[in-house]
Amino acid sequence: MTVLVGLDIGGSKTHGIRFVRGEVAAERTVGSANVQNVSAEAAGAQLEELFAQIGSDVTHVVAGAGGIDTPEDARRLEELIRPLVRTAAIHIVHDSRLILAAGGFDTGIAVIAGTGSAVWGCNQEGREARIGGWGYLLGDEGSGYWLGREAVRHSLRRMNNRLPVDPLTELLLTGCGLKAPEQLIALFHSPHHGRHFWAGQARHVLTAAARGHEASTALLQQAGRSLASMAKDAAGQLGIPGPVVLGGGIGMNAEPVQVAFTSALADAGLTDVRILTAEPAMGALRLLQD
Amino acid sequence: MTVLVGLDIGGSKTHGIRFVRGEVAAERTVGSANVQNVSAEAAGAQLEELFAQIGSDVTHVVAGAGGIDTPEDARRLEELIRPLVRTAAIHIVHDSRLILAAGGFDTGIAVIAGTGSAVWGCNQEGREARIGGWGYLLGDEGSGYWLGREAVRHSLRRMNNRLPVDPLTELLLTGCGLKAPEQLIALFHSPHHGRHFWAGQARHVLTAAARGHEASTALLQQAGRSLASMAKDAAGQLGIPGPVVLGGGIGMNAEPVQVAFTSALADAGLTDVRILTAEPAMGALRLLQD
Repeated sequence: MTVLVGLDIGGSKTHGIRFVRGEVAAERTVGSANVQNVSAEAAGAQLEELFAQIGSDVTHVVAGAGGIDTPEDARRLEELIRPLVRTAAIHIVHDSRLILAAGGFDTGIAVIAGTGSAVWGCNQEGREARIGGWGYLLGDEGSGYWLGREAVRHSLRRMNNRLPVDPLTELLLTGCGLKAPEQLIALFHSPHHGRHFWAGQARHVLTAAARGHEASTALLQQAGRSLASMAKDAAGQLGIPGPVVLGGGIGMNAEPVQVAFTSALADAGLTDVRILTAEPAMGALRLLQD
Repeated sequence: MTVLVGLDIGGSKTHGIRFVRGEVAAERTVGSANVQNVSAEAAGAQLEELFAQIGSDVTHVVAGAGGIDTPEDARRLEELIRPLVRTAAIHIVHDSRLILAAGGFDTGIAVIAGTGSAVWGCNQEGREARIGGWGYLLGDEGSGYWLGREAVRHSLRRMNNRLPVDPLTELLLTGCGLKAPEQLIALFHSPHHGRHFWAGQARHVLTAAARGHEASTALLQQAGRSLASMAKDAAGQLGIPGPVVLGGGIGMNAEPVQVAFTSALADAGLTDVRILTAEPAMGALRLLQD
C-alpha cells in the first residue's frame, strides 16, 4: 500500500499532506524547516514534529523546498528527513516543481508571490530558469513584504509632502497601533517586527483598494506587472509559452494582482495563465506518479 | 577662556573637536553615540570615552545628532553628556544645523549622503523641513548603502539575464571575496555584513565609472538626482532658494554624484549649491557664536 507524505517546505511554514492510496488522509502545518531560513537543528526539529503528528509509517516522501538548486542542497534536506522515515523512498524537488504539479503540470513557469517572490521554470528538455528570489533586502517585487513596505513608503512620502493621512495610511497606522506616519520609520527597523509582520500589512493595501483608494490599486497593479515581467523573462529563456502558474499567499488571494498579472502576460503573448487553487503539497501526488 | 567641544554624533561614529579660543586643539573619533543606532548605555560609554581622550575641562559643548526632532530628544542627549562635563553650557542641535554651519550658513538646506541619506532644512523664520531619512529598509536613496545595494542588484539582473560578469560585478565579487553573482544573495542577507559593509561597496561603483563603465556612471547620476529631488522638495516647502550644502561621505567625495546633484538642482532653479569640505563638527564654532 502506497502511503505518501507530500511536504511543502516554505520560509515561514512547513505544510505536510498524508496520502493513503492517493487520497488525502491527514494534513498538518508546523514551522519552517527550510535551512535557508532556520538552522539545520531547528529544521530537523520541525520535521520531527510534523512526522510525529502526521505519522511516520510511510512508503514515500515527496518534499519541495525553495533553494534546492544543486544535488548537494537536495542531499542535505534528504539527510534531515531520512532518520524520521527509515525505509521510505524520498524524492526532493525544488518548490517550483511542487507548484507546477499542484497546478497540474510537469513543465512550465511557477510564480511564487508570498512573503517574498520568485520565478522558476523548466521546459521539456529539463532546462531550468530562475528569475528573482533575491530576498527581501534586494528584491521580492510583487510580494507581500514588498506591498507592506510600499504602503509604508506611500505614507512617508505623503508625510514629507505635508499631505493629510489618507485611507491607506489610516488602515496601516491602526493595524500597527501607531498614531503618526513618522512612527512607521522606527517600527519598520525594529528587530521585533520582521518581514512576516510587514508582509501581513499587505492586507491594508487590498482593503483600501477595495474601497476605491487609487494609490492602493496602483500598487497592486504594479505588483502584478512586476511578477509578470519575471515570468516573461523565464518564458523567454526556456522558449516556452507557458503554462504560467501563480501561487503563494498574494498570488492565490489578491485578485487585483492576479488581474494585472494575467493582463500583462497577455500583452506579452503569454495566455496560458493559471491561478493556483490547490495547496502546493497536493502536487506531491502528481510528482510521485512520474 | 572658552574651551568648546563640538560633537558630530552620527550613526556609525562620533567625531569630536576641541577648540581652545576658537582654534582646533584636539580631535578624536569614537563609535556611534546616537541613541537611534545604539542603546543609551552604549551611547553614554562612547561619549565617556571621547571626553576622556579629548579632555572634559570644557566651558561649552555643541552637539549635533541625527534624530533630534523634539525638545525631548535634545534633553535625552543632554542627559548623556551632562555627567561628563559638569559645569559646561550644553547646546544640542539637529545634525543638519552642524552641516549648514560647517558650510558657513545658519539657514538653508543640508543634504547628507553617507551610509544613509536625508535632507533637512530651516529658513530664517525658524521653520524646518525634513525629506527622507527613512532608513536603509525604506529609502536612503543616493546613499552609500543604496549604491552598494544597486551594484548587487545590477549584478543579479545580469545573472538572471544570463549575461557575462561585467567590470562592476567583477570588482564587487573580488571586494566581497566571492566567486559568482549568485553568492551575493546570501552574503547580502548575512547577519555578519550589515549596512556599513554594503555602503563600503559603493567604492566599486565609483571605480567602475572612472574606468568608463556606463551602468556605474548611470547609478551615480541617479544617486545625485535623487538627492537633488529631496533638496528641491525641502526648498519648496521652506520657500528659500538655498544655500544647499551637500555633506556625508558620498556627498563630499563622489564627484559624479556631485555633478549630477548640482546639475539637477540648477535645472530646478537652485544654483547656490556648496559641497561640504569641512568636517561637520567644525560647525560647532559658528553655532557657539550665535
